[in-house]
Amino acid sequence: MNETIDLLMQHRSIRQFKDVQLTQEQIKTIIKSGQAASTSSYYQAYTIIGVTEPQLKQQLREVSGQEYVENNGHLFVFCADLNRMYQSQDKTTQVKMKDNIENTEFFMMATIDATLAAQNIAIASESLGLGICYLGSLRNNINRVNELLDLPQYVIPLFGMAVGVPDEQPDVKPRFNFDAIYHENSYQFENQHVVAFDDTTERYYEERSFNTKADSWSEQIGRKLSNPMRMDVTDFVKKKGLNKR
Amino acid sequence: MNETIDLLMQHRSIRQFKDVQLTQEQIKTIIKSGQAASTSSYYQAYTIIGVTEPQLKQQLREVSGQEYVENNGHLFVFCADLNRMYQSQDKTTQVKMKDNIENTEFFMMATIDATLAAQNIAIASESLGLGICYLGSLRNNINRVNELLDLPQYVIPLFGMAVGVPDEQPDVKPRFNFDAIYHENSYQFENQHVVAFDDTTERYYEERSFNTKADSWSEQIGRKLSNPMRMDVTDFVKKKGLNKR
Repeated sequence: MNETIDLLMQHRSIRQFKDVQLTQEQIKTIIKSGQAASTSSYYQAYTIIGVTEPQLKQQLREVSGQEYVENNGHLFVFCADLNRMYQSQDKTTQVKMKDNIENTEFFMMATIDATLAAQNIAIASESLGLGICYLGSLRNNINRVNELLDLPQYVIPLFGMAVGVPDEQPDVKPRFNFDAIYHENSYQFENQHVVAFDDTTERYYEERSFNTKADSWSEQIGRKLSNPMRMDVTDFVKKKGLNKR
Repeated sequence: MNETIDLLMQHRSIRQFKDVQLTQEQIKTIIKSGQAASTSSYYQAYTIIGVTEPQLKQQLREVSGQEYVENNGHLFVFCADLNRMYQSQDKTTQVKMKDNIENTEFFMMATIDATLAAQNIAIASESLGLGICYLGSLRNNINRVNELLDLPQYVIPLFGMAVGVPDEQPDVKPRFNFDAIYHENSYQFENQHVVAFDDTTERYYEERSFNTKADSWSEQIGRKLSNPMRMDVTDFVKKKGLNKR
């Protein structure tokens, strides 16, 4: 179609990187690409923390349990940030702002803002020949990440991203059929889409170039979601002042 | 730098479109580009609704108060969707899943998933010479949007996106300095970044090619956030079964 769409369609997560660090110029270029994304009402309600201290990377790896959180070309942590807006105002205005900053709407908005920037950073990185992996695994112990990065009130870590020179070439993973994800004018759930995707994923796991297994999408979902996970996130977010009204 | 990064850096929201509808092929290409984005644990926890019925577009315009919600090349509404995962399981598993599906972690995760796909769709659209505008304004009356699109339990509308052939060429809006958004190893708020950005935005609003005004970023923030807005979102999300544990 065009170079950019080809790039988007070729995305796969990279979990093994060469031992090459990103340059300051690369970091600046991809962050600025992230900042160029749309932002709700011009708020820019996010902060990105680049992690370079070896001990800190190791500690974050322990939270995630993933080797590539430590070994990569660069590690980013994306935070929803309502503190910058709050701090920009005088005390009287700050009091008036709390109804907004502490409600679910603003928690959603800041999460969306950070994610828009993150996806631009993912694409900019891939356009430079780098690979990326999102790290929701940092929410395995969100209190610990908060403490390690010394985040103030109204700032919460959402996810990380490992970026670097790929040292593996995994297959592109299939996605749900177009008709499962895209509906016209109203919502419809049709079980046939799940059946079709289970079939697709069974074949994918059987035939992929490494780590083959017998599995399907809905079996994965059933296994993963049957045990409560990250149940501390709810209280953590409220403790930070967000999503509490 | 490269074609893709140039494209990202050239982003501006488009709010006036030519009267040209997207083709089915364009819609399919950009949705598939959206689906290619990363997705938490392979969940693909989102659904995209394309709105084509004229009456429905008009009703959504009324929610947003924005003319371009009705007049565009195509209108998308992005929904966080935990219903697909829930429906894919038998009754016994569904009961076990509720602790996860109904907590804040999964609400965040689905919001992030939908937003990753949305940003790929924004970029794919722009790479085809189309313009886009995100529509957080649909949350001005999230209950009404939910009703208009007939969304089931565990599915909530997050934001819309108007896409089409641009009929205006607004200036690229400045962003915070790199150092304000990107920190190393720990979080720092520095007021000098707000002062600098206020200066940047004052000059931008004075000098831009249309609708000049005297304003700055922190004045905007103070005005907008001093009045409680969208306070119904909290209860709405809980009513839909999400973010309630």
